[in-house]
Amino acid sequence: MLGKIAETLAANRDEYFRISLLNLGANQADASFDVDGAIYTMKYYAKIGQALADGKILKEGVPVSISKTGVFVGQHFLLPTKGVAVFINAFNFPAWGVCEKAAPALLSGVPILIKPASPTAWLAHRMVEDIVKANILPSGVISMLCGSARDILNYVGESDIVSFTGSADTGARIRSNPNVLRRSVRVNVEADSINSAILGPDAAPGTDLFELLVKEVVREMTLKAGQKCTAIRRVLVPRQHSKALGDAIVARLSSVKVGNPRNAEVRVGPLVNKAQQTACLEGLRQLKEECAVLFGGDENFQPIDADARNSAFLQPTLLLCEKGLDAKFVHDVEVFGPVATLVAYDGVENLIAIARRGLGSLVASIFANDPGFLQSIVLGIGDLHGRIMIVDSSVGTQYTGHGNVVPSCLHGGPGRAGGGEELAGLRALLLYHRRFVVQGPTACTTDLAGLSADTSLFYS
Amino acid sequence: MLGKIAETLAANRDEYFRISLLNLGANQADASFDVDGAIYTMKYYAKIGQALADGKILKEGVPVSISKTGVFVGQHFLLPTKGVAVFINAFNFPAWGVCEKAAPALLSGVPILIKPASPTAWLAHRMVEDIVKANILPSGVISMLCGSARDILNYVGESDIVSFTGSADTGARIRSNPNVLRRSVRVNVEADSINSAILGPDAAPGTDLFELLVKEVVREMTLKAGQKCTAIRRVLVPRQHSKALGDAIVARLSSVKVGNPRNAEVRVGPLVNKAQQTACLEGLRQLKEECAVLFGGDENFQPIDADARNSAFLQPTLLLCEKGLDAKFVHDVEVFGPVATLVAYDGVENLIAIARRGLGSLVASIFANDPGFLQSIVLGIGDLHGRIMIVDSSVGTQYTGHGNVVPSCLHGGPGRAGGGEELAGLRALLLYHRRFVVQGPTACTTDLAGLSADTSLFYS
Repeated sequence: MLGKIAETLAANRDEYFRISLLNLGANQADASFDVDGAIYTMKYYAKIGQALADGKILKEGVPVSISKTGVFVGQHFLLPTKGVAVFINAFNFPAWGVCEKAAPALLSGVPILIKPASPTAWLAHRMVEDIVKANILPSGVISMLCGSARDILNYVGESDIVSFTGSADTGARIRSNPNVLRRSVRVNVEADSINSAILGPDAAPGTDLFELLVKEVVREMTLKAGQKCTAIRRVLVPRQHSKALGDAIVARLSSVKVGNPRNAEVRVGPLVNKAQQTACLEGLRQLKEECAVLFGGDENFQPIDADARNSAFLQPTLLLCEKGLDAKFVHDVEVFGPVATLVAYDGVENLIAIARRGLGSLVASIFANDPGFLQSIVLGIGDLHGRIMIVDSSVGTQYTGHGNVVPSCLHGGPGRAGGGEELAGLRALLLYHRRFVVQGPTACTTDLAGLSADTSLFYS
Repeated sequence: MLGKIAETLAANRDEYFRISLLNLGANQADASFDVDGAIYTMKYYAKIGQALADGKILKEGVPVSISKTGVFVGQHFLLPTKGVAVFINAFNFPAWGVCEKAAPALLSGVPILIKPASPTAWLAHRMVEDIVKANILPSGVISMLCGSARDILNYVGESDIVSFTGSADTGARIRSNPNVLRRSVRVNVEADSINSAILGPDAAPGTDLFELLVKEVVREMTLKAGQKCTAIRRVLVPRQHSKALGDAIVARLSSVKVGNPRNAEVRVGPLVNKAQQTACLEGLRQLKEECAVLFGGDENFQPIDADARNSAFLQPTLLLCEKGLDAKFVHDVEVFGPVATLVAYDGVENLIAIARRGLGSLVASIFANDPGFLQSIVLGIGDLHGRIMIVDSSVGTQYTGHGNVVPSCLHGGPGRAGGGEELAGLRALLLYHRRFVVQGPTACTTDLAGLSADTSLFYS
């Protein structure tokens, strides 16, 4: 069924690109990142789902002996919850947000209710409409609520799951809903974070890795106008390389065209709406208090082929912070647009402290060759990051990207990033399953085990 | 180190029994359940911990290919959090509560701060004092706060873990603390629940299973005066067997002596304090509104060798509810003492609905032989129960017990039971670890993997 959903979505791809342009101001590359990412994720789960057997229950591990004669054993199992998965999605990925949550829930056999973000509900609604019309899923398996979520959380029960992507404030509001608290409703939160890209001391100006980091920062700032929860917000750079790195990024940004996404020369489109533009400008003002502006930052910036008063553009802006851990805003304020800040660091210990000062992030990327340095950073920040991307000279350009979320790898992060887990292959099904143990006669647990696929699939 | 802690505790066992008597009114059997359970759990983790290698990081699964040439792969890992594990414990298991939480945290390499329940902090304090004096752990690894937790949650951060056992109200207060919400602090909650023991239709009066259930209900009502989060609160019985089951349990309860735990003939001691007695009497009054009293229920009950006015006894009480799903209190009100209610059911579907009406439980036990019946119940209620114990004729008396928590099997449950997970062998270490993925050059992820034990250990 997931394969058929992917086919249905692929057949309507052009229409989704059209809506992405009209509703989000997305150019081809921006729309592709969302829409093609959605279709790819659905296809991926259709494929890996084939590894699951037809059973109604998943076995985990082997029987543990809990009696002297062995007639009575413990066997752990997982069952899909009998409730509904409620998805409360973010505005920046109307297509991908639906699929990355829907695929593992449906594969778990759990029906879904999608509540898209209102500013970009159009695309999500159209996709769900197409899926429903294609008559792929049993009736009632997929539902959608557009508009305000109002008091929906007052009606979830202990068998339901709430999975949310968006702001930390809304995440906290969901988690503190009295009904959610009283019933211990399982809530998964993926919030934005202050992600870091790290330049290693050995990746000096002139090296291949220096150039790759420069390109990656510009890509992350410009794609979807920087409106990605995984985007690079802080570029941690050895103090001695900060001037050179700033110059190199500025040189590239200078040739980037910003304006009407219908113009083929334009690389950066607008933000999703005026409210986001206002929030970004406010955050930018805070960052400017303690940062030098290396590029951009003009509030009266004129976009190409567009009227600045009736649109929501933000000039790509690069800042430099030399205060490290003493900075007041850089580590806490996320400008959700084409804005990044270079933060100078002094040595490995200081670097680890600055990366951790993000208080929990979705991703950090490291551009370096020194194996000892890489290992120190991974061990030093791994527990506060959901994903660490390492680019060395052997990888060259063959990496997936700092901001790219691939379905086979974990997406999520602790602390500020919400503490949730998504994707990571079949691990994503864990959210929709409940672990329990059957203590009983060996024959009986074996009978149940005969119904089962094994969860070791999840972790391979 | 865990092995040495277990030895230290075992050497002071008599003193812990003495404190259990003085502080909790526990007789030998009650104290053993708590103290010996604590020592056993510590020993168990000392033993299974040997399977972990010396590495600083745990590998999970195999590298996943995310580049066409294979130079760039994804590998999932787990790292212990760099924060502190804060334990907020329940009054009824001052000894076991410390060890079942401490063992997996210490094995994960995470320091702990224990906040015991004030009414029974004496025993927990003495145990921690003995561990500290034995000089087993590095300085700072174990800390304790006795008295009110006050504003302690305002100081936890994104790297800390809070693990709580106790009432649903306190659990909700912890989860809704603004600092906990803002930092997405990981919180594990184990709350009391309305656990069920189920008599199968084939376990008719006169059968071995009928007798085993009778004994188990009486044991669960009397041990620790029914003050166990896992105790049987509802006995689900085929309507045609309810009279016979009531008679059989009442016959056994009639010979159970209740009173001063210093009296060798006494099987049931007092509740922990007057506040608990008051709460139990209040709950009992609600249950009586819709239940027949089959045994006990006398508020002016006179304990043996004790003054009822200056003590906190509750007469063991058996109730019968014939209203099934229409009952107002039986499925929601937990009397945390020697009280259980027979609930009559009509057929498998009704039975499943009644068990689920507990809204999430730590445990259900089933006494039946019919394999089809057993399978239907497991598939029907497994997602809302952390543990299901099955006793058939092949098991006979060789089961671990409805209320027994063994460290190799999961303890916890969804919904009302708090939604947490504890124990289950090495799975318990997951709470203190953070999963992340390293996307990088094959050589680099292999280097890291060389440092690692494998998490497949957790699930075996």
